[in-house]
Amino acid sequence: MRPISIASAALFASCAVAQTYQRLGGCPTLGCVFPPDQADFLPGQYFDIRLEVHSPINGSEARQGQPDPDFKFTIAKKGEKAVAAAEYFEIDEPKLERWNFTWYEDLFAKDAHKPSLVNVTAKAYRRVALHEPGEYEATLTYYGKEKTVANWLVRDLPEKRRAKNVILFIGDGMTTNMITAARLIAHRSINGKYLTKLQLDKFPVLGHQMTHSMDSFITDSANSATALYAGHKTTVNALNVYVDSSKDPFDDPKFETISEIFRRRYPDGGVGIVSTAFLADATPAGLAAHTRDRGEYDHVISAYFEGLTKYKWTDLEGPDVLLGAGAENFIPSKGAPRDYFKLFADKDYSISWNKTALQAAPNDTKALGVFSSANLPTWLDRNVYQDNLRNKSNYPDGSGRDAEDLPGLKEMTLKAIDVLNARHADDGWFLMSEAASIDKQMHSLDYDRSLGELLELDDTVRATIEKLKALGQLEDTLIIVTADHGHGFDVTGSVDTKYLDAQEDDRDKRKAIGTYQNSGLSQYTVRGPNALRYSEGVHFPARWDPRYTLHAGVVAFPDHQENYAVHSEGPRKPAVKGNGADGYYSNYKDAVTGFLINGTLPVSADQGVHSLTDVPVFAQGPCQELFGGVYNSVDIFFNMAECLGLADHGKN
Amino acid sequence: MRPISIASAALFASCAVAQTYQRLGGCPTLGCVFPPDQADFLPGQYFDIRLEVHSPINGSEARQGQPDPDFKFTIAKKGEKAVAAAEYFEIDEPKLERWNFTWYEDLFAKDAHKPSLVNVTAKAYRRVALHEPGEYEATLTYYGKEKTVANWLVRDLPEKRRAKNVILFIGDGMTTNMITAARLIAHRSINGKYLTKLQLDKFPVLGHQMTHSMDSFITDSANSATALYAGHKTTVNALNVYVDSSKDPFDDPKFETISEIFRRRYPDGGVGIVSTAFLADATPAGLAAHTRDRGEYDHVISAYFEGLTKYKWTDLEGPDVLLGAGAENFIPSKGAPRDYFKLFADKDYSISWNKTALQAAPNDTKALGVFSSANLPTWLDRNVYQDNLRNKSNYPDGSGRDAEDLPGLKEMTLKAIDVLNARHADDGWFLMSEAASIDKQMHSLDYDRSLGELLELDDTVRATIEKLKALGQLEDTLIIVTADHGHGFDVTGSVDTKYLDAQEDDRDKRKAIGTYQNSGLSQYTVRGPNALRYSEGVHFPARWDPRYTLHAGVVAFPDHQENYAVHSEGPRKPAVKGNGADGYYSNYKDAVTGFLINGTLPVSADQGVHSLTDVPVFAQGPCQELFGGVYNSVDIFFNMAECLGLADHGKN
Repeated sequence: MRPISIASAALFASCAVAQTYQRLGGCPTLGCVFPPDQADFLPGQYFDIRLEVHSPINGSEARQGQPDPDFKFTIAKKGEKAVAAAEYFEIDEPKLERWNFTWYEDLFAKDAHKPSLVNVTAKAYRRVALHEPGEYEATLTYYGKEKTVANWLVRDLPEKRRAKNVILFIGDGMTTNMITAARLIAHRSINGKYLTKLQLDKFPVLGHQMTHSMDSFITDSANSATALYAGHKTTVNALNVYVDSSKDPFDDPKFETISEIFRRRYPDGGVGIVSTAFLADATPAGLAAHTRDRGEYDHVISAYFEGLTKYKWTDLEGPDVLLGAGAENFIPSKGAPRDYFKLFADKDYSISWNKTALQAAPNDTKALGVFSSANLPTWLDRNVYQDNLRNKSNYPDGSGRDAEDLPGLKEMTLKAIDVLNARHADDGWFLMSEAASIDKQMHSLDYDRSLGELLELDDTVRATIEKLKALGQLEDTLIIVTADHGHGFDVTGSVDTKYLDAQEDDRDKRKAIGTYQNSGLSQYTVRGPNALRYSEGVHFPARWDPRYTLHAGVVAFPDHQENYAVHSEGPRKPAVKGNGADGYYSNYKDAVTGFLINGTLPVSADQGVHSLTDVPVFAQGPCQELFGGVYNSVDIFFNMAECLGLADHGKN
Repeated sequence: MRPISIASAALFASCAVAQTYQRLGGCPTLGCVFPPDQADFLPGQYFDIRLEVHSPINGSEARQGQPDPDFKFTIAKKGEKAVAAAEYFEIDEPKLERWNFTWYEDLFAKDAHKPSLVNVTAKAYRRVALHEPGEYEATLTYYGKEKTVANWLVRDLPEKRRAKNVILFIGDGMTTNMITAARLIAHRSINGKYLTKLQLDKFPVLGHQMTHSMDSFITDSANSATALYAGHKTTVNALNVYVDSSKDPFDDPKFETISEIFRRRYPDGGVGIVSTAFLADATPAGLAAHTRDRGEYDHVISAYFEGLTKYKWTDLEGPDVLLGAGAENFIPSKGAPRDYFKLFADKDYSISWNKTALQAAPNDTKALGVFSSANLPTWLDRNVYQDNLRNKSNYPDGSGRDAEDLPGLKEMTLKAIDVLNARHADDGWFLMSEAASIDKQMHSLDYDRSLGELLELDDTVRATIEKLKALGQLEDTLIIVTADHGHGFDVTGSVDTKYLDAQEDDRDKRKAIGTYQNSGLSQYTVRGPNALRYSEGVHFPARWDPRYTLHAGVVAFPDHQENYAVHSEGPRKPAVKGNGADGYYSNYKDAVTGFLINGTLPVSADQGVHSLTDVPVFAQGPCQELFGGVYNSVDIFFNMAECLGLADHGKN
């Protein structure tokens, strides 16, 4: 047990290369294979293969000569003979490509403006598949006898379908810590026993999934959506591709997503996408797009509309339901290259720009609903501080009016189920519903708004279960609620805001914070003459600005002020640009009575960042037992695919 | 769904009383009943009842006259007639007690030195029990017709025993976030797939438990140990009692713990207690002590030795195994009132002061092992930075020598199992094993040491499973791994410590932090010529001070410096006392090359605090299915008690 004793100074070993920056993620050697070593596949899932050979010209890896143009690539099922890939997949040998790129070896190199240059030879094998479960060895041989071996696993999943419908709820950025805080502010307890609970608390099966990227231990929402939808971890900002080193954001090696496979296997099955974000954002985009750059918004909208046009690929044929925000990506006057509202309407979609229209839209018709520009205003602004909806010029027709007749996640999700159920009662459907602003408001340290979104998600899940029960679909529907990554949020006590406001000095203000026994009980649930009230069974705080608020925070943040009071005037903006190039400073106006906290992130950050933590998974319905315990994010894809009977062993 | 719209200014309602301070936790009215409303009981579990009537003399609750000396108290099973408590339990009516106490209504009152005075009348009914499952109503009537009703539930649990042995591992302060970070630094992954996993990751059942107190939403370890061991949530600092308003720390109303019930029901069953903390500390103490003040250390040690002497109570008869640290509470020369080492030896305990003696101690004899004064040195100091074990004068005999031949949690736990199994192979046993310094090192922001303790816990769980398998006991043993509360910890990226050290300015130093794709991969697992190595199957970092370290933090902290480097010279001390009464300031010496972060806690804090988050529960063995999903901390007690067949419906 006791490790071999060594001088601690000797612990500094030569493991320093390629951390802040990497030559190419997933490729520590000079020969690169994508999908990389340790990739898993659903039997029959389509994917591209990208090979690269690197020849660094300068820097610590510099070598003589050009990159190998004659590299070889073979595939072998375990125990069988290696076969050249083109022969194995019965396709033409792809043509050789060449390019170069630069990168920085570390922050010192960046400060000194000393990039490293790499010349590249490459090939891509497009749209291949492995049907037979088992282990495979994909071997790239280059520079004579250098080898990069990728061990691939085609998972041995049964082909039998067990669920008719699957609903995947994603609380973007949602952690167990946030769920605990949301319960505290919305549900009454007496002497330590909650009288009511979250819907999430009632799920029969709980799991944890690991969210890390392929090549970094912190993920973004594109990369993690990819893992959840397609079973492959990739690089930050990438959607359903591995990232190669070429400049083109659309030539990276793709892999098929659950929505594509489901539509390919069950042409009469339905697909729905709901989000409170702009619809070109990563989490909804992950069900249609294939690009290494989540910022290619028009690629996303066009992929919803007509699938991929540059490459032969599985056609999603447009989701049945696409509800969310981000009208700017649909309207030529706001910069969209095409008039997508017209195009979708021409393709027989109903188009809704407000809640009234959405609710009146026919259930037997495909539905596009875009309810505002940018992201949908938050639950807190839509329901409590409604003055904040004014003067936003965010009506989705681009007219400059305000969007005020807004659906929330619940209204959108229930409508999506109505449409999917009306159109695909026989063959079933897949629906993704995202509470996007849990993440977005957590980024700006607006914990009240973030928890409001989480409670809206919980209310949506509750209403969804009731709706499925009413439709007779509950027993046939696998419901999963999970997140794509975390934020380092927690609550550590309460704050007497009246006392804090009354103190002059920053250090005195901190006396207002009560920890342990002085945290007391939640004041957000205290009912009284002025308390907010909701429908039976619906739980949100009775008040958002009690005298004693939550002492909440995240573990990494920009410079900011804290007074721990709800931002009733609108979403929070914790940091503002300083003079010159010196990054962001605390936004004094954000919390005038508060005290200053200097940041723990690079000064270029004006908001918080994602965190490492495993995130919870709640499951009920057919196959729920697959979702207990601790596993990788990609297992969510494999479990859903198994439950929908999407594994294709190629024997039929 | 949309709440009734109201002016946001009106949200400030009159809900401000009793938050930072409370007149008496669990008693918002002037009549107090303990156990309070919503308390649950195991059928047959002994408990005391405390009644109080308050008469506030001044402050916002002030009233005329003295507290009621003629209050009435009745018990009624639901649907049956209310009966005076003395008659119901067939005991003598207790005598009336009187006292008074003061408290502050809020921070303003405290600053102004204006306490509120309360006169009290009270009674206590000692050592009663309810056997018949069902709902009960306990009603206190006072001041004529004022009523305080406590609704009690005796849970309808089956009496049949299903597990022979139970091991409860407590990672003190351990959260899912920390488990994720520990996995990252100790287990190698390739392209997002871990090649090995934590033992915790392999448990078949995962749950979450809510850790909040009865009267505050943040708990300490005493209060939460009480919930886990006895099924009653109480007040911060209390061990197995509800807290009344009297001055005496030993007269508060008690309730029976799992160790006491197990010994009462199975006189030939075994009990073991293992901790890396000083043995008078809250988590081990919770298996023997009954006091409202966890700081009454001699009460704890005497309770291990001879049970309670002041009140007639279930006699634990001393644990079979008691292993940990804190020799100062056993030795008269260090302040203990009695020579406990001699007393335990006289009671036929083997006494061990070092690892060699522990391993040589006979398995058929009761075992006391105390291996250092204070807490056991951390895994990191015992195994990697062993120079830090010197000049500590912490040898448990009080001689002033250094304790260097130290067991860890694993050695202590495996020995405990050997002794319990040798002595109680027929009737089974209950063992609690605590990784205490996950919490203690998290308090001082020493994340490396904390994660080292967590990995030691995981290694201990792995070795325990192997040991039980070898003893043929694995199938008969319920193993639970959980925590008693959280800390708001997470990881948000990596830090280039070389770059950070090279910068002069605090804002420039923050550029060293890499988030998202720039977090890269864990450098703690990189093997090389100088890497630390362990036995097969044992996983700790290969190095603790790579150039690229974790960007880790907690959500609330004192003023401190951060350079994100391991503290190789010894455990961290983030803040030091300033001049005069102005509280704590950053300890510059703690991270000389680091940048300053001003605190988000009262300046009286020199360390971090506990947090709200639900904590994970991992279970395997008989009854494992009881531990899935989300539940209250007290359910851990009820589930363990059910599995051990401790429910007694009183029909035999």
